[in-house]
Amino acid sequence: MIIKILGSGAGGGFPQWNCNGIHSSAVRAGKPGYRPRTQSSLAVSSDGRNWVLLNASPDLRQQIADNPELHPEKTGPLRNSPVKAAVLTNADVDHIVGLINLRERQPFSIYGSDRVLATIKANSIFDVCANDIVPRIALPLDEKIKLTGDGIDLGLTVEAFAVPGKIALFLEKGGEDTNYGSREGDTIGLEITDNKTGRSFFYVPGCAEVDAPLAQKIKGAELIFFDGTLFTDNEMIDQGLMQKTGQRMGHISMSGSDGSLEVFKPLGIKRRIYVHINNSNPALDENSPARKDVEAAGWEVGYDGMEVRL
Amino acid sequence: MIIKILGSGAGGGFPQWNCNGIHSSAVRAGKPGYRPRTQSSLAVSSDGRNWVLLNASPDLRQQIADNPELHPEKTGPLRNSPVKAAVLTNADVDHIVGLINLRERQPFSIYGSDRVLATIKANSIFDVCANDIVPRIALPLDEKIKLTGDGIDLGLTVEAFAVPGKIALFLEKGGEDTNYGSREGDTIGLEITDNKTGRSFFYVPGCAEVDAPLAQKIKGAELIFFDGTLFTDNEMIDQGLMQKTGQRMGHISMSGSDGSLEVFKPLGIKRRIYVHINNSNPALDENSPARKDVEAAGWEVGYDGMEVRL
Repeated sequence: MIIKILGSGAGGGFPQWNCNGIHSSAVRAGKPGYRPRTQSSLAVSSDGRNWVLLNASPDLRQQIADNPELHPEKTGPLRNSPVKAAVLTNADVDHIVGLINLRERQPFSIYGSDRVLATIKANSIFDVCANDIVPRIALPLDEKIKLTGDGIDLGLTVEAFAVPGKIALFLEKGGEDTNYGSREGDTIGLEITDNKTGRSFFYVPGCAEVDAPLAQKIKGAELIFFDGTLFTDNEMIDQGLMQKTGQRMGHISMSGSDGSLEVFKPLGIKRRIYVHINNSNPALDENSPARKDVEAAGWEVGYDGMEVRL
Repeated sequence: MIIKILGSGAGGGFPQWNCNGIHSSAVRAGKPGYRPRTQSSLAVSSDGRNWVLLNASPDLRQQIADNPELHPEKTGPLRNSPVKAAVLTNADVDHIVGLINLRERQPFSIYGSDRVLATIKANSIFDVCANDIVPRIALPLDEKIKLTGDGIDLGLTVEAFAVPGKIALFLEKGGEDTNYGSREGDTIGLEITDNKTGRSFFYVPGCAEVDAPLAQKIKGAELIFFDGTLFTDNEMIDQGLMQKTGQRMGHISMSGSDGSLEVFKPLGIKRRIYVHINNSNPALDENSPARKDVEAAGWEVGYDGMEVRL
């Protein structure tokens, strides 16, 4: 199984278009220790030929151009693509807008929770992915589903499971609801298994908290790509960028007693890679104390183009 | 007035993600005479500091990164952008999806026809551009409107006018209507005037036909950016890419007795630049007979990053 990080940034990418904060400014200026990051997406393949996108970021056209594995096969028909399916973990802009790039009557499958598929259905612009050749397949929670696309068995199995999280920002409801209208299935994690080898990994790019069911689920895993949005819960406020904590945005932090660095310690997960890293996260700076903390704890900071084989 | 081409390609850009045709294959392989093109957008500024987007393509994040004029001002606040407004000429995916990149609570103005604004309103994903700070301003036809954004007079005037065209593909209706549900305002052209100098140019990236009113409108103009989608009406079919003519897609061709090269001859327009160039257009190849025809007729083929001062 081959896994590639297409985009390791959070929503907005790195740098973010309108951000003049210390990290976005530094990467825009080409400061050593910083590298640009497109928005959150992985690609996975069991055979190196047919690929499944895990989330479809607004930068998908650029990501396809930058990754030759995702180019049309040169000896194939006039219209062809190795992208056979996309699995969505929530309805955030950074995870669904890339679908709009996959137009021009190319068959593939879209997998997502009922809640996420309903958002796509409610926005007619996604009809550019023609319904007659791009089936939208509901992912039930806690069930193993074999992935197919364009009539091909992709050799991979996905299991979706609910994780603590929040509804997409643009769908938030006001009023009394302290969770902004979020329900189960608004944010999911995925376990992807290679049918041939039986080896598997987890992908959880958005997660508010590692609660007991999640800890139980991922315990002893071989590999996880996990929510690396923020280093500290208050960093957006401290840097003057936004009046929201990580918890308000539905994201756990790396640091702190209930941060991912700490709570993963007893879980015995062999390889841990942060993705969905926000432009405010000091661990983006390879020379920062935050990055040293992350690496000392045995974590890796994912980057665009990073490849992992399992 | 400074005008920059952010993206000179048509929908899908060049190469197109799933296209294995001769031109997309050639540019992907780096063949001499070909250059990559992002999707259709211009930027214009009267002062070099505040900018107006003419259409917002799905590649906008990459286009902002590639054009330092559009970066936040280094000495400005933590969140700032020189992008103060976007004017939309139709609701095609390649012209509106970029708006989704302009999130993170940045004030700017969106201008479009009633019909285009209705499409944006009907798709909740565009609510990422918060209504309270991103006004959506209806552009009446045949009236001069002064452009403003984020409380700033942008020093430019726009006049929108209907041009022969078609409704966006994803909004097409079936049935008996031979124009697929299109109405006036689905496709518009723009005249942009610099308020200080009084000089102006036209921007018409989608146009099915140069009819008498349009010819009258643009006659004697100093500069036009015009629909360069196809070289011949049948080229998509001839190259095996799609069973649609240019006319079916709402686009005039460059060549032929009713093509733009011919019908512009009596109009006395000083500078003519093709934009919105489709991946099937042989004029994309700098060494092609088609390119020689275009240049011999005094036209230029627009490219990403091209700058024109007026």
